[in-house]
Amino acid sequence: MKIGLIGLGKMGLNLALNLADNGITPIGFDINEQNVDIAKQANIVTADNLALMISKLPSPKIIWIMVPAGKPTDSVVNELKTVLTSGDIVIDGGNSFYKDSIQRAMVLEEKGITFFDVGTSGGQAGARHNGNFMIGGNPSKFKIIEPIFIAISALNGYLYTGPSGSGHYLKMVHNGIEYGMMESIGEGFDVLQHSPYDYNNVDVARMWNSGSVIRSWLMELAEQAFSDDGNLEDIKGTMHSSGEGRWTLDEALDQQVATPVIAMSLLMRYRSMEQDTFSGKVVSALRNEFGGHEVDKK
Amino acid sequence: MKIGLIGLGKMGLNLALNLADNGITPIGFDINEQNVDIAKQANIVTADNLALMISKLPSPKIIWIMVPAGKPTDSVVNELKTVLTSGDIVIDGGNSFYKDSIQRAMVLEEKGITFFDVGTSGGQAGARHNGNFMIGGNPSKFKIIEPIFIAISALNGYLYTGPSGSGHYLKMVHNGIEYGMMESIGEGFDVLQHSPYDYNNVDVARMWNSGSVIRSWLMELAEQAFSDDGNLEDIKGTMHSSGEGRWTLDEALDQQVATPVIAMSLLMRYRSMEQDTFSGKVVSALRNEFGGHEVDKK
Repeated sequence: MKIGLIGLGKMGLNLALNLADNGITPIGFDINEQNVDIAKQANIVTADNLALMISKLPSPKIIWIMVPAGKPTDSVVNELKTVLTSGDIVIDGGNSFYKDSIQRAMVLEEKGITFFDVGTSGGQAGARHNGNFMIGGNPSKFKIIEPIFIAISALNGYLYTGPSGSGHYLKMVHNGIEYGMMESIGEGFDVLQHSPYDYNNVDVARMWNSGSVIRSWLMELAEQAFSDDGNLEDIKGTMHSSGEGRWTLDEALDQQVATPVIAMSLLMRYRSMEQDTFSGKVVSALRNEFGGHEVDKK
Repeated sequence: MKIGLIGLGKMGLNLALNLADNGITPIGFDINEQNVDIAKQANIVTADNLALMISKLPSPKIIWIMVPAGKPTDSVVNELKTVLTSGDIVIDGGNSFYKDSIQRAMVLEEKGITFFDVGTSGGQAGARHNGNFMIGGNPSKFKIIEPIFIAISALNGYLYTGPSGSGHYLKMVHNGIEYGMMESIGEGFDVLQHSPYDYNNVDVARMWNSGSVIRSWLMELAEQAFSDDGNLEDIKGTMHSSGEGRWTLDEALDQQVATPVIAMSLLMRYRSMEQDTFSGKVVSALRNEFGGHEVDKK
């Protein structure tokens, strides 16, 4: 089985190697030539342009997109709409917003092209080995692509989740849960860091990963991070985010579901990106106004 | 090696079986005769009273307490102070508040008795096999009891954490993290339950446990719960709590560490225990006062 793979960045390259190891031949393409060179060095077959990649695939052609969500994905989908034909299949393995995926499925369906929205979890390690995939799209076409997921997933590591959008929706909620779990772990270690005892973070994480209730892959990643830098002195606590936590909260608000922990995890990320806050200035000024409490001057 | 084990409830009985399987002979005692009978049926050696249990142990005598935190533990510790002698060792494996443990260590030390505060994680399954233990107390005496933990712990599953209180402090923070992780998982599935898609919770949990970033023992327990009752229709969403989350928050407040997710997890537990809230009545009344918005009548 041969599939086209657009996007040979960190996730895409690992996915290409996973596919190749498991009997699926990827034909890779990336607009970034450096990524193409790295893939070639890793013995991945590549094509110099999209048309050439398409020409190398048997029909029905199957194309896996692994590029950043938003405009890059849009641009690839629009291009694919012009070059693919009825019966072909497009898989978006990125972190797209599920409503965009519903829209893309409709647009491609106009030409008889089937679109699957696939949430991919497990990080780079999962893309490389034993991946985790949430797959939404036309159920009658799923059988055509299922061998790909059998090849590259962990045992029980893929799930057909329902109609278009359901794969990326589930990945969105997965990331919302991930935000909360990560913030919980972060806050716990922050309390330990301020505690009256002298805990060794890597020893604590290793012990917690060995039989405790909170053992988890995220705690294993914490153990790994602490083994490199026991008190994380080399990094800042700024927590970037790329959308899914926000979308989960938006969805919870739309459905009026109380999700304070997911909300707070997201807001703490925003707070971490600011050196100072205007809300802090306002509160400080008010304390000064009514009570004469001192303010910290800039 | 023989040790006394006070408390043969769910955790204590599993611990007794774990000890017995791994070359440590427990002599069990419980004030609840039913628990003693169940232990006897499981081939655990028991004693009919505390004095008899003590008499069956070689010196230095080692006693593991596995009873509820607070008054039950206090009562056992006070009794042990009168019957044990210098050189003996008391282990509290329960969920005691760490400041109580510091106090108990001081009280027992007056008679030359060494006290270890041991946080136990892994649930009933962990008490039975491959347990997880956080151990605070006198470092020079730790070697005497270490063989017990080598016998009953998961590989890397026990840690000597420092002076008295440090074991239960670490277990307290572990539970704070657990509160946040559990609430995150709960909120995520709540969004799914309200989603426009028809997800099967057990399939989702199984797939997430197979290679995703949020794979964890708690997600495995969710999978187990959903496999018994796919939409948890047989249980209520009241979330009881037994102290550790509250203590973690108290400690965070004492140290002025921002832990909003752990705090919110605790507050959502309190909220879940109320059918209605007075704060809700106040807000509803105020909306009515200023805007004439309708209130729901009782």
